[in-house]
Amino acid sequence: MAGRYHLTCLALCLTLVTAHIPMGYYDSAEPNSPIFVTKSSSPILTRTQSRDRLDAVRRVLSNERIDAFIVPTADAHNSQYIAPADARRVWLSGLRGSSGTAVVTQDKALVWTDARYFTQFEVEVDSTLWTLMRQNTDQSIQNWLATNLPANSVVGVDPTTYTRTAWRTLETTLNNANITLRAVPDNPVDAARRNLNDGPPARPNNPLLALGVNYTGRRSSDKLAAIISQIQSRGAVALVLTALDDIAYTLNLRGSDIPYNPVFFSYLVIRVDIAAPNILLFWDNGILSPEVSQHLASEGVQVQSRPYSQIFEYLRNLTAEVPHGSTIWLSEDASQAVNMAVESNDAIRVLATVSPVALMKVMKNDVELEGFRNVHVKDGVAVVRALHWVHQQVALGANVTEVNMSDKLEEFRGQEKDFMGPSFSTIAGAGENGAIIHYSPLREGPQRVIRKEDMLLVDSGGQYLDGTTDITRTRHMSTPTPAQRRAFTRVLKGQISLATAVFPAGTMGHTIEVLARKSLWDVGLNYGHGTGHGVGHFLNVHEGPAWILSSQAANDPGIRPKMVYSNEPGYYEVNEYGIRHEDLVETIEVTTSADHLQASGMVGNFDGRGAVGFYTISLAPHQTSCLDVNLLNDFELSYINSYHARVFSTLGPILRQRGLTDVLAWLEDECAPIQRSAAVWITATPLLLIVSVVTVFKA
Amino acid sequence: MAGRYHLTCLALCLTLVTAHIPMGYYDSAEPNSPIFVTKSSSPILTRTQSRDRLDAVRRVLSNERIDAFIVPTADAHNSQYIAPADARRVWLSGLRGSSGTAVVTQDKALVWTDARYFTQFEVEVDSTLWTLMRQNTDQSIQNWLATNLPANSVVGVDPTTYTRTAWRTLETTLNNANITLRAVPDNPVDAARRNLNDGPPARPNNPLLALGVNYTGRRSSDKLAAIISQIQSRGAVALVLTALDDIAYTLNLRGSDIPYNPVFFSYLVIRVDIAAPNILLFWDNGILSPEVSQHLASEGVQVQSRPYSQIFEYLRNLTAEVPHGSTIWLSEDASQAVNMAVESNDAIRVLATVSPVALMKVMKNDVELEGFRNVHVKDGVAVVRALHWVHQQVALGANVTEVNMSDKLEEFRGQEKDFMGPSFSTIAGAGENGAIIHYSPLREGPQRVIRKEDMLLVDSGGQYLDGTTDITRTRHMSTPTPAQRRAFTRVLKGQISLATAVFPAGTMGHTIEVLARKSLWDVGLNYGHGTGHGVGHFLNVHEGPAWILSSQAANDPGIRPKMVYSNEPGYYEVNEYGIRHEDLVETIEVTTSADHLQASGMVGNFDGRGAVGFYTISLAPHQTSCLDVNLLNDFELSYINSYHARVFSTLGPILRQRGLTDVLAWLEDECAPIQRSAAVWITATPLLLIVSVVTVFKA
Repeated sequence: MAGRYHLTCLALCLTLVTAHIPMGYYDSAEPNSPIFVTKSSSPILTRTQSRDRLDAVRRVLSNERIDAFIVPTADAHNSQYIAPADARRVWLSGLRGSSGTAVVTQDKALVWTDARYFTQFEVEVDSTLWTLMRQNTDQSIQNWLATNLPANSVVGVDPTTYTRTAWRTLETTLNNANITLRAVPDNPVDAARRNLNDGPPARPNNPLLALGVNYTGRRSSDKLAAIISQIQSRGAVALVLTALDDIAYTLNLRGSDIPYNPVFFSYLVIRVDIAAPNILLFWDNGILSPEVSQHLASEGVQVQSRPYSQIFEYLRNLTAEVPHGSTIWLSEDASQAVNMAVESNDAIRVLATVSPVALMKVMKNDVELEGFRNVHVKDGVAVVRALHWVHQQVALGANVTEVNMSDKLEEFRGQEKDFMGPSFSTIAGAGENGAIIHYSPLREGPQRVIRKEDMLLVDSGGQYLDGTTDITRTRHMSTPTPAQRRAFTRVLKGQISLATAVFPAGTMGHTIEVLARKSLWDVGLNYGHGTGHGVGHFLNVHEGPAWILSSQAANDPGIRPKMVYSNEPGYYEVNEYGIRHEDLVETIEVTTSADHLQASGMVGNFDGRGAVGFYTISLAPHQTSCLDVNLLNDFELSYINSYHARVFSTLGPILRQRGLTDVLAWLEDECAPIQRSAAVWITATPLLLIVSVVTVFKA
Repeated sequence: MAGRYHLTCLALCLTLVTAHIPMGYYDSAEPNSPIFVTKSSSPILTRTQSRDRLDAVRRVLSNERIDAFIVPTADAHNSQYIAPADARRVWLSGLRGSSGTAVVTQDKALVWTDARYFTQFEVEVDSTLWTLMRQNTDQSIQNWLATNLPANSVVGVDPTTYTRTAWRTLETTLNNANITLRAVPDNPVDAARRNLNDGPPARPNNPLLALGVNYTGRRSSDKLAAIISQIQSRGAVALVLTALDDIAYTLNLRGSDIPYNPVFFSYLVIRVDIAAPNILLFWDNGILSPEVSQHLASEGVQVQSRPYSQIFEYLRNLTAEVPHGSTIWLSEDASQAVNMAVESNDAIRVLATVSPVALMKVMKNDVELEGFRNVHVKDGVAVVRALHWVHQQVALGANVTEVNMSDKLEEFRGQEKDFMGPSFSTIAGAGENGAIIHYSPLREGPQRVIRKEDMLLVDSGGQYLDGTTDITRTRHMSTPTPAQRRAFTRVLKGQISLATAVFPAGTMGHTIEVLARKSLWDVGLNYGHGTGHGVGHFLNVHEGPAWILSSQAANDPGIRPKMVYSNEPGYYEVNEYGIRHEDLVETIEVTTSADHLQASGMVGNFDGRGAVGFYTISLAPHQTSCLDVNLLNDFELSYINSYHARVFSTLGPILRQRGLTDVLAWLEDECAPIQRSAAVWITATPLLLIVSVVTVFKA
């Protein structure tokens, strides 16, 4: 089972993607925009194809009396990555960039995208038909519609492709301009494709993978009992789960319908108004395999399975079945379509909050945490091997490209137990490419070779049955400039400041985020993305609602022990180089006996509230030869040295056992303790030196 | 004029008050609760008085068919401090605490207050008539009403005593319980007082003080032109100013109707739909003195003056005069009464935002900033003299009380030019009293003597014609314990971290607040109040919407050059001692040539956004003998030494000129540079010492 799954996942992972951009996480992309993985093999549209597709959509719109139709990059589950079945914008506009939204009227066709794809637009899109709208520079979509459409126009949107929140925002703007927003359940792009005999690809429904309690740490029946108790305490009759990772987590099942995220297309309805089976899974054709049925039975769960396509009809019927005035609980991120189905009966009250499953899975159990620690040892071995490899190859003058580095990481991770594929598309950015925050090397076109004078930023991660990784290391292939050294060191100082911070349990992510920036801010530098994201356990590598951002994240649950975050400050010198140091960290209680650099100094625990800190679980060396040791204080030096000692003592024996002696020797060098050189010391503190010398003579 | 004003202000300032607690600023008080200055001379109510007053109010409520009436501590302007005319809760309940809310029904009488006044309640309030409701422990007022009143009850509130926001929140809760919230414009407490021939005291309307452009830096006509331009760009016909400091700022007038805040009871309406005079001031009987008229003329402003009491009638008429669909602009903090008057015509749209004048006055002009710097020199002299005095007295074994210290500060400030009175009631907390965040010594009852073994926390400030001060110094009268030394040092490290921070222009206060806490958090300690507040220029010492709090303040304008904040971390060991270090800081642009400790290292300015930092303007020494120098790094030592050098070079010559030689000698000692002692040095960094010695021998 795992083997087959692995192959499916690998096949998908070989496609190219830019890592997901959560709201506010990076400055330069549309908030929360989902991502479509463009297959490198998909060809550029001919002029005739472009015209035929646009004409076909316009005919549908004309028949339906829709004046403008919006085609976002989105699926029905507000997923970070989307499947080809949902890639309507790419089919229609021809723009293969991961992010963008098309708008079509009878005489205009526009596509909004961000700066990464402005050049790509010129190459891939027929500009006699389509207009490029630059996100954050040109008018927003809603303002364009409000100012360019006459009063009484009708704007159409497929209600599965918009969350209720996004729908409401758009509707308010349009209504103020006397424009109607209309839900169009039969997507006009799909209709046009069928009319052209080019129907949309089938929605994937790959085999499900059952995860035992040895991996998940908690039986599905236990999770459901807790969820049902919450539904009852909220006074609701049912909870509708729409986020794919919520469903995978609840049932201890995984899928491979979407790249990088091991989830499967489904809805889950949990009812408390009827006797069991009150758990309804809407998936594929509704027929579960014997293996999956057996798994659910062994997890103590009775699931009634129904076809995926029946969810909306079911919800409409449900509103008639339950008593007048009943409450149905939805996630805030549920689609407009789900909301409309529930609201089909006026007597039903909708409770919309952050998903209770999202709040449940953000707190990891002991088995999940042990899995996280374990995968980071395996992942560390793979990362160290790849870093050693790239240094060796570049030093030898070999023609190594960014794509080669990405492949080598996957090759080495593939040799580790229970590896299921990358957790996102590797960012391997050499030189100037490192400064492009969303960069991912393309397989087609000219390849960027990693040169001796390059900084190389490598951000990659793996999905394993027992956990998920995400790590960034920045390496210089020879000797960094003073400016690179300064930035490299200050980014690391920021990472250390956050990594060693102690704070009251429940502190919000944005409250401590500045600690990661302070060292750069001190000299007027900064980075244009967030500092930390939650991480799913063999689930989405970006897992809300836990974030460490500059501004307050919606529904931030506060930081408490047993969570997993990334810690990833950076610095980007446009057109020159990029630096990012990223580790995953586990949250722990900081007491005097904790394994934490501040432990010995603790004299309070915030009046009983509890002190929380981080414990770094990623294991790979930072390149100490890129440091400006002058900029490090004793505490920071001690952090780096003790971290490197742990990296070497953990990974060294494995490398030795496998006979990877050259990697072992390299790692030992990389993990050697840093000492202040004499010259550095004199420069840094001449006065103190004199004081200390005097002391010695006195003594 | 200034002389007479001074006396008025001083008379008020001799009353006792607890410093205002802005929303979120301190944990233990009701958010945004205004404060009534209890005169120490007001007697405790007899049992008969208590019963008569309550009965009289109940009779009015019965006649008016009101089932429950809420009596907050509030005036019609959402002021921080209130005048005796508005002190209805004190008159009714007998509780003289600065903060509290009474609720009266026909068979229940309750008063909500915070922990400071639980004991006072037992002494002052007749508990056979009244029930104490402990804030943050017992049910909230709105929940109590919702659960204790039968459906269809009527709750009454004087709509001048609630902001629209507070009204809406209460109304929602009550309506959910089928209870009506009714506005009662003729306050039943005032009616009851009249019925008892004990009518409320007259609202003060003390003479106004004109401030010339040499103090304000900007003529009133210039300010009004900018405001009018904003009203026009918002498409409104009028702006109604309701906050007393907004009006004082706009007209360059000051008053003394409210303790500590140099403002006067008034409303200001600015209309753009008619020709001049379109500035309407509602004040007293509407008759301005020749001096004030002349001032306004010289400021280029034509003001039409009307009686204060006519505001509501005027607003109702205004809504009929202006065209159908016109917009009237109100502050979010305007009372429910003002909102109701404007909404008396359905065709009027209300625009409610943070006051544009609040956003204008938060940015200081060059004359105001020069004034701030100047008053801090004067204030520094007074504070240094008082600190020297208390050390000297306690060392001599004199019987010095907290009140004596408070009086001495006022005496010394009174010898400085243009001093107008304290900016709030001095907090002089010796020993255990220092740990009470809202503490202010009482004149009545036993006096706390400052003893040799005491930590003494002194938080005080002055109003001067050219600016406002607010400073806290913590002094130990002899030798601190190691725990006191650690906390004293860590609080100072936090203050230094914030004082020397560099950040992008526009950064919100809450983003950087953790810098002031980190040093305490590192060992599990914390403090239960905010870290910084904006400061008015010869206006309210707590001036929004600029705050540096843990959570995001509503309408935070972001930190840019030319603002004034306090920087005041602390630590409180309950029943033992309190520590707070508070300075006022001016915000400056940090370039390589700035007078800032980070200036020389600046290599960027946040991509053109601009780098901002603080410049400390308060001038008084920190007690270096309370420091644990082991805990300070070189940067912090250099900050302290350079700050002390500036304190001495600024204040020293003035003390010398005045012949205050003993104060001068004391200050010189206090400002002497700190050096790491040899012993300390060896303990701190034995390894580095060895390295450095080796270096010397090599050299």
